[in-house]
Amino acid sequence: MQRYTGREMWDVDECQSPRMGSVILGVDGGASNTVCVCIPAAMPFNDPLPVLSRTVAGCSNHNSVGEERARETLDRVMTQALLKARRRRSNVCAVCLAVAGVNHPLDQQRMLDWLRELFPSHVKLFVENDAVAALASGTMGKLHGCVLIAGTGTIAYGFTSDGREARAAGAGPVLGDWGSGYGIAAQALTAVVRAYDGRGPETDLTNNILDFLGLASPDELIGWTYEDQSWARIADLLPVVVQSAEGGDEVANKILHNSVGELASSVKAVVQRLELGGDDGKYPFPLVMVGKVLEANNRWDIGKEVIDCVTKNYSGAYPIHPKVEPAVGAALLAWNAIARELDGDIQTVQ
Amino acid sequence: MQRYTGREMWDVDECQSPRMGSVILGVDGGASNTVCVCIPAAMPFNDPLPVLSRTVAGCSNHNSVGEERARETLDRVMTQALLKARRRRSNVCAVCLAVAGVNHPLDQQRMLDWLRELFPSHVKLFVENDAVAALASGTMGKLHGCVLIAGTGTIAYGFTSDGREARAAGAGPVLGDWGSGYGIAAQALTAVVRAYDGRGPETDLTNNILDFLGLASPDELIGWTYEDQSWARIADLLPVVVQSAEGGDEVANKILHNSVGELASSVKAVVQRLELGGDDGKYPFPLVMVGKVLEANNRWDIGKEVIDCVTKNYSGAYPIHPKVEPAVGAALLAWNAIARELDGDIQTVQ
Repeated sequence: MQRYTGREMWDVDECQSPRMGSVILGVDGGASNTVCVCIPAAMPFNDPLPVLSRTVAGCSNHNSVGEERARETLDRVMTQALLKARRRRSNVCAVCLAVAGVNHPLDQQRMLDWLRELFPSHVKLFVENDAVAALASGTMGKLHGCVLIAGTGTIAYGFTSDGREARAAGAGPVLGDWGSGYGIAAQALTAVVRAYDGRGPETDLTNNILDFLGLASPDELIGWTYEDQSWARIADLLPVVVQSAEGGDEVANKILHNSVGELASSVKAVVQRLELGGDDGKYPFPLVMVGKVLEANNRWDIGKEVIDCVTKNYSGAYPIHPKVEPAVGAALLAWNAIARELDGDIQTVQ
Repeated sequence: MQRYTGREMWDVDECQSPRMGSVILGVDGGASNTVCVCIPAAMPFNDPLPVLSRTVAGCSNHNSVGEERARETLDRVMTQALLKARRRRSNVCAVCLAVAGVNHPLDQQRMLDWLRELFPSHVKLFVENDAVAALASGTMGKLHGCVLIAGTGTIAYGFTSDGREARAAGAGPVLGDWGSGYGIAAQALTAVVRAYDGRGPETDLTNNILDFLGLASPDELIGWTYEDQSWARIADLLPVVVQSAEGGDEVANKILHNSVGELASSVKAVVQRLELGGDDGKYPFPLVMVGKVLEANNRWDIGKEVIDCVTKNYSGAYPIHPKVEPAVGAALLAWNAIARELDGDIQTVQ
């Protein structure tokens, strides 16, 4: 079998009709990794959805890894997904790139311009914040309600049925995303340093984190922290914090309780601005919960605490834990947007 | 005049007696920049001190800019100081490198090994955290008392007369140095984002920071923040926060009050561990105050508030605002360490 990789692949001749075996690429680029799925454009809405291929690469948030590395990662993950699905660029009829770090129309335009260099003009291109795909993953492509993502990073994002949107948080660790996996872990590391130098109370986090990292002393934590400032690497300490809290450590419990407050406040800010709960807060709307901070199947259930906190004010919020991943949500978004055209045309080809 | 730059300079033959015109290099590497001074080894203790040359370069904290760039900066700043003082490597009898990011004996050893490659074996080498030089700058080379640095970063560092030492904070922005210029500025940026997305109260910081940065909307702050994550660049927002607080903004005032508490708690942790204040806290000890957060000549005087907060518990603390800069403190440290040898020998040569 002839293999194409990277640029080579994008440069092959369009040897097939763009309508034969057409596919949609959905990409979810979070703070930890990037997932691409390839689904048939003429997809009947089955359960489970017919995902032709799925590929994974590293972080593609340009704010975290820089623009060049982000693009390399996105290029690679899409190339590999097409290879794995035995499709070519010419089979692609739509791409939805939903990536963390798209916070401004300029970010969106820059990404669209770059995508346009990779795909010919008939291919529909969509660029969104990764939160939008996460919402779509819970609502099967419909943009209505609020999504809360709390993985390495965190963001709340909402849409009304008539297309208004709002977001809260998602500004990264420097700008106070304290409920994120990174935020929780950084607060735990800080608590260890404070206990060590006498500014804060003793905590089980010290031994638990040092054991987890194989370090001998809190002195070594500073070097460990700065030798590689990848947000995902810091966020990987989350389970240690949860276990310490479950073990009764007060400092760890306080960090988790604060994080619940932060995450709930992001959701409430979005819901309030969009009036998703109606006049009395009782109007029903989906609250899609995504990310390892919320999904962890622990006794200390951060996601459940956040829902309890939100529903005190907005009893109409109904939580959804999506069955499909955000990358599929991204693909569904693109699918919805081109569905009408496809209905009358492509579906008859396959 | 023949010019030597960088490596070339270190490689020249030792054409002079090492005792003729001997000099000491003192280097202060903080989070924002690196200063090197060259002083005569056979220096009489005049006021002002006879500084032969002074050079400045960028940040040399390896945790912030990486080891390679840190070394390049240190190499360059020392080379230029010698050139400016019309001295050569063979004139150097001692070097004291006091740099932020030296937090562990391994950091110290790595830096010493590298310095040893630059200087022959008879040159006395000292590597310390930059806080140690800052203390020495306030006590004319004597290591006793506590220093609080709050510039881009922050650390408290103390010594007893019998050589015990302790530190607090200085663990960088990920690990909670909230009283630093960076910490204050990051909290202010966070407050702007929170006000904008509805999680926090309105604040004058929004307009004041956007005006200062020439940005049109808080949306643009995320891009601005992550396009260059240099700690010093963020910390440059400090005056805007102070002005906003002086203008009566509650959010800015709260950030500054919290920072005072953080900085005072670092000092108290060190003083308590070293028992610098004696049994009743009244025993006198120098409290050396260094850095732009503490020196700012504003109505909102952070340094004064910190001193007030510390002296409530330790009335013996007497604040010193050094007349010489930390780089001179570094040179004085080295001078003190070799003084006995020099007294009997080199001073007679000059």
